[in-house]
Amino acid sequence: MTQVSTKPPSGMRDFLAADVVQRRYVLSVVQRVYESFGFVPLETPTIENLSTLLGKYGPEGDQLLYRILHRRERLSRALEAGQPAELDLADEGLRYDLTVPLARVVANYGDLPAFYKRYQIQPVWRADRPAKGRFREFWQCDVDITGTKSLVADAEVCGAVATVLVELGFTDFKILLNHRELLRALVAQAQIPPEQESAALIALDKLDKVGAEGVVKELAEKGLGAGQGEALLGALEAARTPGFLATRAGDTGKPGALAAAELVALLDTARSGPAGKYLAFDPTLARGLSYYTGPIFEITCAGLSGSMGGGGRYDNLIGMFTKRSIPAVGFSLGLERVLLVMGERGMFPALGKGPQLLLCRFADVPASAAISVATTLRQAGVRVEVYADTPALGKQIGYADTIGASFVGILGGNELARGALTLKRLATGEQRTLAVAEAASVILSL
Amino acid sequence: MTQVSTKPPSGMRDFLAADVVQRRYVLSVVQRVYESFGFVPLETPTIENLSTLLGKYGPEGDQLLYRILHRRERLSRALEAGQPAELDLADEGLRYDLTVPLARVVANYGDLPAFYKRYQIQPVWRADRPAKGRFREFWQCDVDITGTKSLVADAEVCGAVATVLVELGFTDFKILLNHRELLRALVAQAQIPPEQESAALIALDKLDKVGAEGVVKELAEKGLGAGQGEALLGALEAARTPGFLATRAGDTGKPGALAAAELVALLDTARSGPAGKYLAFDPTLARGLSYYTGPIFEITCAGLSGSMGGGGRYDNLIGMFTKRSIPAVGFSLGLERVLLVMGERGMFPALGKGPQLLLCRFADVPASAAISVATTLRQAGVRVEVYADTPALGKQIGYADTIGASFVGILGGNELARGALTLKRLATGEQRTLAVAEAASVILSL
Repeated sequence: MTQVSTKPPSGMRDFLAADVVQRRYVLSVVQRVYESFGFVPLETPTIENLSTLLGKYGPEGDQLLYRILHRRERLSRALEAGQPAELDLADEGLRYDLTVPLARVVANYGDLPAFYKRYQIQPVWRADRPAKGRFREFWQCDVDITGTKSLVADAEVCGAVATVLVELGFTDFKILLNHRELLRALVAQAQIPPEQESAALIALDKLDKVGAEGVVKELAEKGLGAGQGEALLGALEAARTPGFLATRAGDTGKPGALAAAELVALLDTARSGPAGKYLAFDPTLARGLSYYTGPIFEITCAGLSGSMGGGGRYDNLIGMFTKRSIPAVGFSLGLERVLLVMGERGMFPALGKGPQLLLCRFADVPASAAISVATTLRQAGVRVEVYADTPALGKQIGYADTIGASFVGILGGNELARGALTLKRLATGEQRTLAVAEAASVILSL
Repeated sequence: MTQVSTKPPSGMRDFLAADVVQRRYVLSVVQRVYESFGFVPLETPTIENLSTLLGKYGPEGDQLLYRILHRRERLSRALEAGQPAELDLADEGLRYDLTVPLARVVANYGDLPAFYKRYQIQPVWRADRPAKGRFREFWQCDVDITGTKSLVADAEVCGAVATVLVELGFTDFKILLNHRELLRALVAQAQIPPEQESAALIALDKLDKVGAEGVVKELAEKGLGAGQGEALLGALEAARTPGFLATRAGDTGKPGALAAAELVALLDTARSGPAGKYLAFDPTLARGLSYYTGPIFEITCAGLSGSMGGGGRYDNLIGMFTKRSIPAVGFSLGLERVLLVMGERGMFPALGKGPQLLLCRFADVPASAAISVATTLRQAGVRVEVYADTPALGKQIGYADTIGASFVGILGGNELARGALTLKRLATGEQRTLAVAEAASVILSL
């Protein structure tokens, strides 16, 4: 057999113990905070029907979907028919975000609460070009509230993610805020025709990566004049003027006035909550996904290119799955981005893992005796590894360092006869022979 | 747009809050117990290269793999070349079990401990026909020890899963035990040629589902005479005779003697640990996967068709990924089967979920005031949902039942002026106006 690669596929990662405990630490904070806001958990399948996924994320999103190849008879039929297209070869794909599955779930289950507040912490897959902090399999931590247009919901999802970040130790993040309807008004004001609007938003979404020139260039490639691109960027920059939102909100006949009023009200509602001091209006914020309809959010953090998360209101998405129109708003934290920044800044507390005790024995001690002692220690709450074989004791003890154990337990004929264990603390070399239950107390009290 | 199905794909499931909390409860016990045995966590990607997966599970396994369709240029090239085969259209697939990824990981990372004891709790995907308790996406909870042939490792993985089941409240399960080399000896004894051996084991693996006649029939379809099938089943039944293992172990020249001796030693080693009283030799146990080489295990439980988990020794699998030969043994618990039995038997404790308090307000109370009170309560540890709108108070309070909240908090002008909250306990109707901090204590003390 030829040797196969033992690396994970491109853009995918193995998480060894040290990674897993860091990931779990962050997720445990996320889960606790999201629950404190009254959200309940949801988990949806990795695989969704393509009919669920396609047409929700915009053309770029559709391109990045992972699709599942048909099997057996269906594959044969598709291939025998000749000239198969992509959709003849697959009708299922991998979860691309957690919002579209939520919309499907809300449409499917009639007995959910009227204001369904769910959180969902699961991986998603995008066949994007891998880069620093960008993977093809990555985790999202979403909170969404469906069933209400009240801006309290928008404020609450912002409050939940702000609380998570604060509890993780972040102090210098911002939650950028904009409104799709305000953007549309400013796009129209720049004489960009409605059918070019979503292309304009996709180009604008790359502003922080490619700069103003890059955006104008992409707009030109999409058939817009340089004048239009510059007019759009000019109008957006002008909107940074303090007081812009209040003025626009007061100008009630003008396109975007209602949107500006909503942002003013949202900032006021959120003011007294945890998101208040982090929210900041940014008229250039666009968000790439096509399903947003109202306020949109994005988290930025010093030193991180790209965002730690984002979200917004999507009042029409659920209606694509059901005849009822159900408004909704949500926020998604990107686990990998959070971990990246925390790692670079050394924000993790000490996180224990692995066995506390390595149980060693002399060659004349039967394995069943070691297992019996290990069972007693484990029942007392100690994490115990039993050394499987019986080489020289020094070799066994030396192995304890490799696995990060703090103690070695030694079983010989003497210990067995007395129901005891010789306990050696590796950091100090201190060694004592104790009853097994007493050894457990010593280990647990460290 | 035509209405698309809102159901998850066939064999896949959505887990709403009540499901998620039951699943988490079981997984938290699994994790705690596995860690008490000194195992450390590993997580591997959902997507693996097909070169990693193919040829490890036997022909039936290869058929059930989910494959990822190529995208863009690679797909176009494959289709334009004409007559594409399955392998031209995909070179990645979904994780099929947790053992093969572990083997790849052990081969890939040179700095793992010599005896790498890892646990892994993740979903796997098999395009099998869905049935009761059998899904296409399901979770496995694996423990494995690599790097040693010592039967202590086999005893420890059995001990870990036995402890999980006991802590979950199971008392009537068995861990069936057999040995691949003993099976091979008995297969040879029935005059079945070596090239038919793995087909014979696959047929035998279905014994509990299709009975002896079904096995003989499948063997006949694979080209074996009825005499051979009956001889095999006869030899296996004869091996149930008490003392068979000890006799065979003593018959040192005979094929299978060493395997029998290993089973005797394993039973003796495990005797004093948590698996001891549940282990039972079953000569007909075959296990479907092709990579096992030594002892094999399977958990049965009264009333459950199929198993709650299984495992065994696979001393050659890791060697398929690296030039070093590294022995290994592992055990996999099937989360869905465990949940199925626990559900049928009512074995779950009461599991809290959802908000404890629904915070309601009169229409003249600004949303920012409600968010401020909610923030204080959440910081004190209370799970709080803020009612987003302000319909009549009765309607708001009525909603608390829908979400299972135990308390309603009411904010009016009076409460606001005093920094207070009117707290109503729904079960009793009892109602009191309290300082917000005091209200938090009352809720948390329930």
